[in-house]
Amino acid sequence: MIYADNAATTPLHPRAFEAMRPYLTAFWGNASQPYRAGRQARKALEQARSAIAQAIGAEADEIFFTSGGTESDNWAIRCAGDFGRSLVQVSAVEHHAVLNACRGLETASLPADGEGLVQATAISPRARLVSVMLAQNELGVIEPVQAIARKAHLQGALFHCDAVQAMGHLRIDVRNLGVDLLSASAHKFNGPRGIGFLYVRRGTPITPLVFGGAQESGLRAGTENLASAVGMAEALRLHLETLEDDQKHLLALEEILLEALGDVPFCRNAANAPRLPGFLSLSFPQMSGETLLHRLDLQEIALSTGAACDSKEVQISHVLKAIGLNADLARGTVRITFGAQNTRDEAQAVGKAIRGVWVKGG
Amino acid sequence: MIYADNAATTPLHPRAFEAMRPYLTAFWGNASQPYRAGRQARKALEQARSAIAQAIGAEADEIFFTSGGTESDNWAIRCAGDFGRSLVQVSAVEHHAVLNACRGLETASLPADGEGLVQATAISPRARLVSVMLAQNELGVIEPVQAIARKAHLQGALFHCDAVQAMGHLRIDVRNLGVDLLSASAHKFNGPRGIGFLYVRRGTPITPLVFGGAQESGLRAGTENLASAVGMAEALRLHLETLEDDQKHLLALEEILLEALGDVPFCRNAANAPRLPGFLSLSFPQMSGETLLHRLDLQEIALSTGAACDSKEVQISHVLKAIGLNADLARGTVRITFGAQNTRDEAQAVGKAIRGVWVKGG
Repeated sequence: MIYADNAATTPLHPRAFEAMRPYLTAFWGNASQPYRAGRQARKALEQARSAIAQAIGAEADEIFFTSGGTESDNWAIRCAGDFGRSLVQVSAVEHHAVLNACRGLETASLPADGEGLVQATAISPRARLVSVMLAQNELGVIEPVQAIARKAHLQGALFHCDAVQAMGHLRIDVRNLGVDLLSASAHKFNGPRGIGFLYVRRGTPITPLVFGGAQESGLRAGTENLASAVGMAEALRLHLETLEDDQKHLLALEEILLEALGDVPFCRNAANAPRLPGFLSLSFPQMSGETLLHRLDLQEIALSTGAACDSKEVQISHVLKAIGLNADLARGTVRITFGAQNTRDEAQAVGKAIRGVWVKGG
Repeated sequence: MIYADNAATTPLHPRAFEAMRPYLTAFWGNASQPYRAGRQARKALEQARSAIAQAIGAEADEIFFTSGGTESDNWAIRCAGDFGRSLVQVSAVEHHAVLNACRGLETASLPADGEGLVQATAISPRARLVSVMLAQNELGVIEPVQAIARKAHLQGALFHCDAVQAMGHLRIDVRNLGVDLLSASAHKFNGPRGIGFLYVRRGTPITPLVFGGAQESGLRAGTENLASAVGMAEALRLHLETLEDDQKHLLALEEILLEALGDVPFCRNAANAPRLPGFLSLSFPQMSGETLLHRLDLQEIALSTGAACDSKEVQISHVLKAIGLNADLARGTVRITFGAQNTRDEAQAVGKAIRGVWVKGG
C-alpha cells in the first residue's frame, strides 16, 4: 500500500511502540497509587509530560493528558474562560471537533479568504474565547495564529488553538504563539491513538469536562493512560528531532507528485498560502474525487476526499465552501498528505496513478 | 512484587497485548476512511464491538467506545435522559466519577446500609436518571441493581449502572439487569488503559459529551482507538472464558489470607453482603491503614487504603463514612484485591506480612 493520507492518521512509529511496550507489559502500576509500582508509573508519566512541555516551550504543569484532539478541543471550547462572557468565536474552517463543540453555545464565525486564511477583523469585545487552528486539516494552510491571538487578547478574550494537524509537523512555541490553550493528538504525529493533550497556560480559568478522581491536577479524571502518554512523548520527540530534514523531503515529494501529473488539468488549493510540507489539496475539474479515491484504492493507494474524519459524509466540505470553491471543483478535490516514511517512488506512483485515471476518462 | 490491588488497575493480559499488537504495527488504518486500510480497520473495530456486545447480552449498536469508565460515567450522568426532568439520584457509595459528574446538576442521594448495600426506598417521581454501581470499588459489595433499576423505571426514570469494577468479574446480562446505560473500563479486567465503553439500550435518549466527527454513530467523536478496542474485547473474552474457575480460585485466596492473619484482630467490611470474589476490605482497630500500606510496600506488597483513584486523599473515604464505620476503624482499613494471576503463596504472604506488622506493634 502507498499511504498518502497522513493527515487522517499516521502509523505508530516503531520506536514509539518500543517506548510504550514496557509500560504495557512490565511497569503497569497505577500512577495514582502510593506504593512502589505506582511511584514508578508516576515518574514515567511525569517524564512524558515534561518532555511534551519542553517540546512546545511550556511548563510541565501546563500539559494535561486527554483522550485525543477531539476531547481537547471540546474541553477548551466548552469549559475555558470567564463565564461573565458567553460568546465563542471560531473560524469558518475549523475542524468539526471545534465547530460541533460549540453546539448550544453562543457563537460567531470568523471568515476565511480564498486561500483558507482566517480573517480576524471582527473579534467581539464580548468574546469569551476565540478559537483558530494552527494548520487547516483539509488544505494544510498555516493560519496566522500569533496575530489572531493578539487581537483576541486585545478584546479580553482567551485564545484557543487547535494544533492537532500541526503538532509534530511545525516547530511550535506556545509562548511565542501567545495562545492560552492548545490542543494536540498523538496519532497525527505517529503516536498512538486514544491520547492527546491540552496545553493550558498557567492561570487560565478552566473547569473539567470529565469529572471524577483527582488525576491531572483535578482537571481531567480517569486512570492515567501511562503507556500511551509515553508513546506520545516519544513520537513527538522523534518528529522534532528530524523536522527540518523531513520538511525538505516532504517538499520534494510534493514536487515529484506534481511533475508526475504532467498534463492533467488541476488547480491547487491554498496555492499561495503558507502550508504544511507534504500536504496537497488538488481539485480536478474533469474528475470526481470520490471516483479517484476508489480507482486509486484498487491500486492500493490511499488518499482522501474532503474532510477525513468521516467516511459517511458525501457533501461538499464546509472548508471548501468557506474558501469559495465552486461545486464542480469541490467535487473533484482530493487531499494527498505525505509522511516522512513516504518515498520519492511512492510520490511519483501516486501522481502517475492519478494521471492514469484521467487518461482513461476519470 | 505481590500485587494485591487489582481493583485499582490490572496488568494487561499478555494475550490482550498480542491481540492489540497487529493493530499497533501493521493494520493501523483509520476506521472512518473508505479505502482498503480503513475498511480493514473498520471490520476489526466492529468485530470488537460485537464481541463486547455478545459478552453482556447487548446488540453491537448499543456499545459505544469511550476513553474509559470515568468518561462513560460522565456521559451517562450528564447527557442521558429526558430533559423535561432534571433530578439525578445516585447512591452514597458511588465512585467519584459518578458523584463528581453530578456537579452543577440537581441531585439527591440514595443511602447505603452498614454492609454497603444501596437502599432504593426513596426514588423520586421527578428523577431523570438513577445511577447505582454494580460492584462497589472499596467494599466489593454487589449491589441489588436489578431491583433498583425496576424501581427507577416505575418512577419513569432512566437507570445507569457503573459496572466498572464488576465487568469481567461477574456474568453480566444487560437485559436481565434491566439497565438503560452501563459503564465499563478495560483496565479493570486486564485490558489496556484509556479505553472503555458505554452500553446504551436502543431508544435511550442521549446526546454527546464529546462533539466532533461522526464516529460512534455520531454520539462520540474522535478517531477510533482501534488497537485498544481490540485489546479490550480480547481481555473481556479471556475473563469470561475462565470466570467460574477464577472465582473459585479467588475465594480460596481470600480464605488463605484470612487464615494467615491468625490472631490479628480485624473486622471485615461488608461481611454479610454478596461480594466480588478475591475482594477484601479489612479494618484493623490497632493499626493505621497508611502505615500498613507503607510497611508492606517495603516488602514489595501492593495494596490499597480507602478509595484507590487518588493517592493524595488522606481523609476517610465517603464510602466508609456511608456505611457508618467509626473513624478509628476507617483509619485502619485496607483493601486487598486479588486477581486470577495471584497465587496461593502470595495470598499467604500478604496475610503473614500484615500479621508481621501487627506483631511489631503496627
